[in-house]
Amino acid sequence: MSYLGVGVSPGNVPVYHGTDLKAVDRKVKLVELMLRFVICVLALVSVLLVATDSQVQEIFTIRKKAKFTNMKALVFLVVVNAMAAAYSMVQLLRCGLSVVTGSVLLSKPLAWLILSGDQLITYMMLAALGAALQSAIFAKYSEPELQWMKVCDMYGKFCTQSGEGIASSAVAWLMMVVVTGMSSFSLFRLYGGNK
Amino acid sequence: MSYLGVGVSPGNVPVYHGTDLKAVDRKVKLVELMLRFVICVLALVSVLLVATDSQVQEIFTIRKKAKFTNMKALVFLVVVNAMAAAYSMVQLLRCGLSVVTGSVLLSKPLAWLILSGDQLITYMMLAALGAALQSAIFAKYSEPELQWMKVCDMYGKFCTQSGEGIASSAVAWLMMVVVTGMSSFSLFRLYGGNK
Repeated sequence: MSYLGVGVSPGNVPVYHGTDLKAVDRKVKLVELMLRFVICVLALVSVLLVATDSQVQEIFTIRKKAKFTNMKALVFLVVVNAMAAAYSMVQLLRCGLSVVTGSVLLSKPLAWLILSGDQLITYMMLAALGAALQSAIFAKYSEPELQWMKVCDMYGKFCTQSGEGIASSAVAWLMMVVVTGMSSFSLFRLYGGNK
Repeated sequence: MSYLGVGVSPGNVPVYHGTDLKAVDRKVKLVELMLRFVICVLALVSVLLVATDSQVQEIFTIRKKAKFTNMKALVFLVVVNAMAAAYSMVQLLRCGLSVVTGSVLLSKPLAWLILSGDQLITYMMLAALGAALQSAIFAKYSEPELQWMKVCDMYGKFCTQSGEGIASSAVAWLMMVVVTGMSSFSLFRLYGGNK
């Protein structure tokens, strides 16, 4: 990653005044823009997949319906992914604006705000993923010792669809990790010596 | 936090040659040392609490034993916390050495290694916490729709002790978030302009 070499060159050349540095910065911004866009889409896909997930089963004469609201972990996942999508949308606007105007992030408070937001969303997504995956494992493999039912044996389609939602959210999370790293870099290099 | 002002002063004064900067750096190192020590202890406490957790119940004539291995999420939590404790021990040594010798972290590969390790442990702890908390919620409140048993009604002492283990791990995680932030700062300021 040549970007990581920004400003490391010896001497006291003011950073961000060379045209090549601006070009590199622009490329990085475009990557961030793309990542945030994909995160937004994946988070939305996850919300839609999980929130519309339901299946009706008839066992003898009893009709039973599985909905995502039966599993609190899935509700949490939907809420967190909706937040991630909305957050990414806002960041997309900010990032798009700065690409269009060609401005460079030099404000520390703003950089702190962005990093904090990214980190918060990343951690929340992971917590929701951990909980949802745990629920999914219980539902699929059960815990025989605890007398918990294998829900997926009964609601196969329901389980598959929520599994797809979880996978979509997991990919979005991985991208959030990368974006958080980029925000972290953008902030802390401001503390490196000269502005 | 005056530390955040390191190297922001205008002009081209080489960072890390002023004695006051070294003093600040030393203080930050001591904070890191303390945090890593507490993390190590809390992670160990969590491992011990969860791994020694078991309860025998007699229902009519049937003896049933609850162990932490019945819940895969608790096994995951124990493994991750053991890793966190071991990792913190290694970092404690490194951090302690650098406080004693008064050396400053300027090697980028090492700083990358430290940040990656911290971030990995932080994310793993959160994933384990999410899964363990979800299991705990199932065990305590059950999901009536899914016909899952309220395990905690039967194994009260077992649930309390593993809850304490989860809480201990949660506090350790919060501290890891702070430590990861510090490592992130230590790394990325190296990219800020002058070495």
